Amino acid sequence: MTTYRLDLAYDGTDFHGYARQPAVRTIQGELEAALERHIGSVETFVAGRTDRGVHATGQVASFATDAAVDPDRLRRSLNRMLGPEIAVLDLRSAGPGFHARFSATGRAYTYLVLDREPPDPFLARTAWHYGRPLHGDRMAAAAVHFVGEHDFASFCRAAEGRSTVRLVRVATWRRIREGLLAFDVAATSFCHQMVRSMVALSVEVGRGRVEPDTVPAIIAARDRAAARGAAPPHGLTLVSVDY
Amino acid sequence: MTTYRLDLAYDGTDFHGYARQPAVRTIQGELEAALERHIGSVETFVAGRTDRGVHATGQVASFATDAAVDPDRLRRSLNRMLGPEIAVLDLRSAGPGFHARFSATGRAYTYLVLDREPPDPFLARTAWHYGRPLHGDRMAAAAVHFVGEHDFASFCRAAEGRSTVRLVRVATWRRIREGLLAFDVAATSFCHQMVRSMVALSVEVGRGRVEPDTVPAIIAARDRAAARGAAPPHGLTLVSVDY
Repeated sequence: MTTYRLDLAYDGTDFHGYARQPAVRTIQGELEAALERHIGSVETFVAGRTDRGVHATGQVASFATDAAVDPDRLRRSLNRMLGPEIAVLDLRSAGPGFHARFSATGRAYTYLVLDREPPDPFLARTAWHYGRPLHGDRMAAAAVHFVGEHDFASFCRAAEGRSTVRLVRVATWRRIREGLLAFDVAATSFCHQMVRSMVALSVEVGRGRVEPDTVPAIIAARDRAAARGAAPPHGLTLVSVDY
Repeated sequence: MTTYRLDLAYDGTDFHGYARQPAVRTIQGELEAALERHIGSVETFVAGRTDRGVHATGQVASFATDAAVDPDRLRRSLNRMLGPEIAVLDLRSAGPGFHARFSATGRAYTYLVLDREPPDPFLARTAWHYGRPLHGDRMAAAAVHFVGEHDFASFCRAAEGRSTVRLVRVATWRRIREGLLAFDVAATSFCHQMVRSMVALSVEVGRGRVEPDTVPAIIAARDRAAARGAAPPHGLTLVSVDY
């Protein structure tokens, strides 16, 4: 058996998320169907199981097979079948122990918020059009408090008894240009809706309805009700995975 | 009567071009219908009547009306009705002689070509996925010959007896990042399919099938058959208009 690593980008708009589900179109479902046509049925693993509507520019998947694989030919064939919504940026053999999910040591996401009144036709699929000006400096001051190892239960949906402790390495807001803010966040891993919950709280801070220095108490509450819900999925993009 | 100037951006993917036509969805048709609901029927003029599938980030339109107009309120209402595919970036009163088309002294376009094998899900609507590597330096060398006042009949579709002489001020190819080339071109005005014809020829140069120094002879031929057809519309964006 040889293990292969796939680097993927996708526009999640028209998919029901990454993870395969019966009767709906998913990234994993499309990818495994395309792989099956070339090398037979394989099980794929993925670094970040993105929700419905979430995008990726640097997703990583893996699979093992004993079929003969020419990585360049397979990549080109997959791109013809899956493009342009899903792109296979790279496909190559990895070490035998490589597992896209369990070998990953970190994930990085970016969330885009358009805080001007006119929409942007070219960001309609990938940015949350909030439509009112936000105070980026206040949001950056709030985000500082996310960095470090914390129990993020206030920011996690449906924890179901699993640990919600995560180590956040980076959490910053930057203004890309007038009217457009980006949240860059990196952690060992994220619980469900964690980034979107951080964004929703940040936006309340940016509007002036929550003070940046209340974030530590919101984290300490370990209570979903202490936060401010979740921002919409379409502003979120998985940008890279560390191994 | 007061004259108003509108600055527009739009994703042309799902429109049958800018200019109003019966029974199909066009930018002008949508814009005039939305204006009519607020200030009654008006005739709009536009700097660049973009073809089906062509986009704009800096289109300019104008109209005159004796209706009472609050520009900020009207802009917000238009954005609610037209967004996110069409955005009204700005709406303000202009001098009485202002005419979006006839007052314009220059138009600038950008054309994007993805010259790597994998598609880019986020550029699927706005870049031509050529899919094979192109030699950007050769394309830049070819583009130099477009600059200046020339008869561009070789690059114009259906000239119908009108002059095809144009003054091109800027024509450059640049590599935005690995796998992505941009053609920036500015002129007093453009004849039909002129930019897309320049791109098609440039791409043949970039593949090595046409030499950069043959461009002057192709221009001098003043014959559509001397060029190399037209690149697809969806890579083209009107970026700015000068007055």
